[in-house]
Amino acid sequence: MRETRSSSGFLLKQRAFLKLYMITLTDQKRLYGLKLLDTMRDEFRQYGYKPNHSEIYKALHELIDDGVLRQVKRKKEGMKLQEVVFYEFKDFDAAMLYKKQLKTELDRCQGLLDKAIRDNF
Amino acid sequence: MRETRSSSGFLLKQRAFLKLYMITLTDQKRLYGLKLLDTMRDEFRQYGYKPNHSEIYKALHELIDDGVLRQVKRKKEGMKLQEVVFYEFKDFDAAMLYKKQLKTELDRCQGLLDKAIRDNF
Repeated sequence: MRETRSSSGFLLKQRAFLKLYMITLTDQKRLYGLKLLDTMRDEFRQYGYKPNHSEIYKALHELIDDGVLRQVKRKKEGMKLQEVVFYEFKDFDAAMLYKKQLKTELDRCQGLLDKAIRDNF
Repeated sequence: MRETRSSSGFLLKQRAFLKLYMITLTDQKRLYGLKLLDTMRDEFRQYGYKPNHSEIYKALHELIDDGVLRQVKRKKEGMKLQEVVFYEFKDFDAAMLYKKQLKTELDRCQGLLDKAIRDNF
C-alpha cells in the first residue's frame, strides 16, 4: 500500500480517506460502480465536501492495482444487455490492515485539530 | 484572503493551518523570524507533523502580502551588529476575521473526521 500522508505528515490525504470508505462499502456490499460517485457525494454533502469523479476513480483503481479489490460484472436479471459492475475483496486481510492503519491516522488527525482549536481559540 | 480549502472542500490546507498559528503567535508576541521553524516543529512533533521550511515561509509571506502582518527589525540591545526580526499586525481586524473563518473550518474538519470514524469503525 502507498503512503497515506504527505512527507511533512500534515492531515491525511483525500485519496486515503476515500479508499477507507470504499473498503467499508465493499464490506457492506454497497460498492457499485455506477452509483459510487452519488453515494460518496450524498455521504459528505452536509460537510461541504464534494469529492470529484477523478479523485474517486483514482482511489478505486489504486485499491484494484494494489490487489485489495477486484471488479465483478454480473448481468442484471431481466435485462438482456445490462451489466451491473460491483466490487469484492481480492485480499481481505490487506483491506483490514489498511483500515487499521487509517484508524490510527484518523485519531492522529483528530489530535492535531483538537490541538489547533485549543492553541488558537 | 485566499481560499482556505481545495475546490472539493476536503480537509483544510496546511497553508491555512500555519497562517492561523502565525496570527496567534503574533498576538502572543511570540513570532520571531529566526525561531519560527523550531517553534512550529516543537509544537507538532508529538503529532507526527513536521512542517518544512518552505511551507512555513510561504504561509508567513502570504500573510505579509495580504497586508495582515508586517515585518519589524530591531537592533538587539548590547549586540552592535545583530538585528532581531519579528512580526506585528498590520491589519488586526483582518487577522481576527481570518481566525474566525478558520474556527468554522476546523469545526467542519472535525465533523468530517468524526463521521469517518463513526462510519468505518
